[in-house]
Amino acid sequence: MYSDRIRLTSLQSKVMSAQEAASFIQDGMTVGMSGFTRAGEAKAVPLALVERAKQETLKISLVTGASLGNDLDKLMAEAGLLARRSPFQADATLRKAINAGQVMFTDQHLSHTVEQMRSQQIKKPEVTIVEAVAITEQGHIVPTTSVGNSANLALFADKVIVELNLAHNLNLEGLHDIYIPEERPNRKPIPLLNASDRIGVTAIPVDPARIAAIVITEQPDSYSTVTPPDEETQAIADHLIEFFKREVAAGRLSNNLAPLQVGIGNIANAVTSGLINSPFEDLVQYSEVLQDSTFELIEAGKLRFASGCSITLSERINDRVFGNLEKYKDKLVLRPQEISNHPEVVRRIGVIGINTALEFDIYGNVNSTHVGGTKMMNGIGGSGDFARNAQMAIFVTKSIAKGGSISSVVPMVGHVDHTEHDTSILVTEQGLADLRGLAPRERARAIIDNCAHPDYRDALNAYFEAALEKGGQTPHVLRDALQWHINLEETGHMLNKK
Amino acid sequence: MYSDRIRLTSLQSKVMSAQEAASFIQDGMTVGMSGFTRAGEAKAVPLALVERAKQETLKISLVTGASLGNDLDKLMAEAGLLARRSPFQADATLRKAINAGQVMFTDQHLSHTVEQMRSQQIKKPEVTIVEAVAITEQGHIVPTTSVGNSANLALFADKVIVELNLAHNLNLEGLHDIYIPEERPNRKPIPLLNASDRIGVTAIPVDPARIAAIVITEQPDSYSTVTPPDEETQAIADHLIEFFKREVAAGRLSNNLAPLQVGIGNIANAVTSGLINSPFEDLVQYSEVLQDSTFELIEAGKLRFASGCSITLSERINDRVFGNLEKYKDKLVLRPQEISNHPEVVRRIGVIGINTALEFDIYGNVNSTHVGGTKMMNGIGGSGDFARNAQMAIFVTKSIAKGGSISSVVPMVGHVDHTEHDTSILVTEQGLADLRGLAPRERARAIIDNCAHPDYRDALNAYFEAALEKGGQTPHVLRDALQWHINLEETGHMLNKK
Repeated sequence: MYSDRIRLTSLQSKVMSAQEAASFIQDGMTVGMSGFTRAGEAKAVPLALVERAKQETLKISLVTGASLGNDLDKLMAEAGLLARRSPFQADATLRKAINAGQVMFTDQHLSHTVEQMRSQQIKKPEVTIVEAVAITEQGHIVPTTSVGNSANLALFADKVIVELNLAHNLNLEGLHDIYIPEERPNRKPIPLLNASDRIGVTAIPVDPARIAAIVITEQPDSYSTVTPPDEETQAIADHLIEFFKREVAAGRLSNNLAPLQVGIGNIANAVTSGLINSPFEDLVQYSEVLQDSTFELIEAGKLRFASGCSITLSERINDRVFGNLEKYKDKLVLRPQEISNHPEVVRRIGVIGINTALEFDIYGNVNSTHVGGTKMMNGIGGSGDFARNAQMAIFVTKSIAKGGSISSVVPMVGHVDHTEHDTSILVTEQGLADLRGLAPRERARAIIDNCAHPDYRDALNAYFEAALEKGGQTPHVLRDALQWHINLEETGHMLNKK
Repeated sequence: MYSDRIRLTSLQSKVMSAQEAASFIQDGMTVGMSGFTRAGEAKAVPLALVERAKQETLKISLVTGASLGNDLDKLMAEAGLLARRSPFQADATLRKAINAGQVMFTDQHLSHTVEQMRSQQIKKPEVTIVEAVAITEQGHIVPTTSVGNSANLALFADKVIVELNLAHNLNLEGLHDIYIPEERPNRKPIPLLNASDRIGVTAIPVDPARIAAIVITEQPDSYSTVTPPDEETQAIADHLIEFFKREVAAGRLSNNLAPLQVGIGNIANAVTSGLINSPFEDLVQYSEVLQDSTFELIEAGKLRFASGCSITLSERINDRVFGNLEKYKDKLVLRPQEISNHPEVVRRIGVIGINTALEFDIYGNVNSTHVGGTKMMNGIGGSGDFARNAQMAIFVTKSIAKGGSISSVVPMVGHVDHTEHDTSILVTEQGLADLRGLAPRERARAIIDNCAHPDYRDALNAYFEAALEKGGQTPHVLRDALQWHINLEETGHMLNKK
């Protein structure tokens, strides 16, 4: 019975229904689940928990890699299953519950969660559910399309539930590189010197005695919803590629640039796609999620290697990649997110980090998470892991949103996720502000002149001039600093235009 | 001539006056100087530059380790010598010039400056001036009471000026551990596994052909102005030590805690002093500046080893330490600040970081730098290097300032240096808020209840209640969020009390 997939035969007796497996989970528990941006999440047991939560008091603290697919965050939120959620989500229903204070959401740097568990700063899971493509002869778990936090969450848990998903091709095996840092004080350096290095093992080395259940599923991952570049995202990509060309010409980068990290989403995907027609060769990615553009770059012969912690593809390209995985496999590795995002590695190899901002202010403080300064969008994700330690911390956004009623360049951001110390290049479709080495007053000049939309430039200049009258290292008129956000809330337009 | 101090005899011909040495520095140059929090700064050539700046057009971009002693930042600012300054300062006159926009100050994480130079993100110095206790037979430079950025700044510069300071005892030699990370893409892991490891060499390995001048000086470092604990700083120390006891009792820390980083200043010094009468043993520091309390802990038999990048002592203890350095030397090492603050090492060894906040808000965002949201105090220093990567990121402050007209706990900080993702424990004399694993609404409750001064608690509660009405992951009433800072500016009291 599934002997090619459950190779430690003693475990074959652990096969049971999702409902039976779900019975290991009790009200009040901390539960770990696999899943990172719609890739490789546990699919059946969460649904069984949803059903139970409709009929009994069942609330859990849920820790994953990142966001889940197949509407699981939505269904769990609707059923009232989630007391707490960390470290990232991207679902409209769950977001609403979070912003209403019904779910306590701990928004974390994605490299931090399991490290904080390891040092007992936060609670470890009692039960962890991991989607797998197979269980090895040793009883070790071969993950599917993401590693995320699965390895550590499984190793920390008292009980592990494996969801063996037959919809995933067995040839995913060998793609993963599971490396677990030692407990302190005996921690060794992470021996990763190049993005393509393999430093671990291909399966999660859990003690098979802790595998309490195996549930058979056959449900594919959700597709990503990335859209092709539009005029603005293409312009952002073009500005960035011109900038890289100037850096190469100045001798500050070589023609293969540096290991690239690209955040999730349409803008970042457009930037990566833009590299296809660039003069750069022999590129390498050291990133979090591998998206469509990663594979298009490989197909174009531009990308030598891609390291990530999950693969999330659109319907357009999904079958082409997973149906022909052997073609890509020697150019790919999936790591734990603790390693894909680790400050030690990011700083050592000199990653260029490219992430999307919700808004940034004239001094280069970036808001990645909070709409109107208060409402959670998705979470900080890995942007802080990369921006702080990257050799270049690049943030991209369209200069306006909602038909022009919102400027993404504001006097003061309503919420800070990345301080001006951690942001060096800002790009909108209007242009690129190179902030390296500049003081705040100089940053303001560069940002307003290069990144702001023309409809907002005069207002930003007026604010900055008034702030300069008040003086300071980071001049502000406190009484007006958040007025654009207040206007938006009260009138629907940042400049109070009806 | 100084043959015990200039051991490469060919260099003895380079001895010249400070005025002659200063002539290597031209208007518009980027100049590196040794010096970290009043320890080991170049003392004579800066004064010669000050004299020139009074008579000719001479403006430089000055990069140091951190703040300088002997009023040098003051004198250079007064003479109009500084066009740009980075990465840290702590002088009232320079601060005024920075806030007036006369000096462009780039406030940086102290581990970032030389890394950004190495990857050519910011300009390298043309000339670097390093204070030394000796020059070795190889022509290598033995620093004095700080390493700071001296090693890298000297290695990057076209010309190096050595200030040989006879006021420093030759027995400082051997105290330093100079390790320089490789250029990318050939960067290796930093082989430091314990705070006491020595991984480098004891002198800065410059090419002696680039030593353009040697200036003999005999001026001691300035003393630090640390004051003994008062009632409030003692209470902060007590809260923190009680917390550590609970952590040990819960099995989350062992009785030697973890490598401690303690920021500069009276509160941090009081915390370290408080450890003398604590039950903890066999402590280790992995810190930036080593202050009085480090040596008192060693003398009390509590501290096994202290790693730092400078030693800055008060008049009370200075001679006792430097006059008996052999007694302490095997328990000390001074490293480049890039290594003392390096995220790779800080995260690997699991530092407990304790730093001082100017203010924090009810969600745990910390302002370390900007008074009233606009005016620079000193700079972020190493607080971000440590807080982001520490196993516990602790921030301490008195709950009120200026006789109670300022609350250090506010609805929204006027400037963010450390986001809520990076702060886990907040302490005032009122108590300690343990924020680990909490969502923002829970953090607010813990912070208001434990840290706020009673005179401000009702007002904070009223703000938080009103914010909860508006909802969100991080509830705020944007119209009122900065009102306390506006009140302070306009009425001299945060609650508008005359």
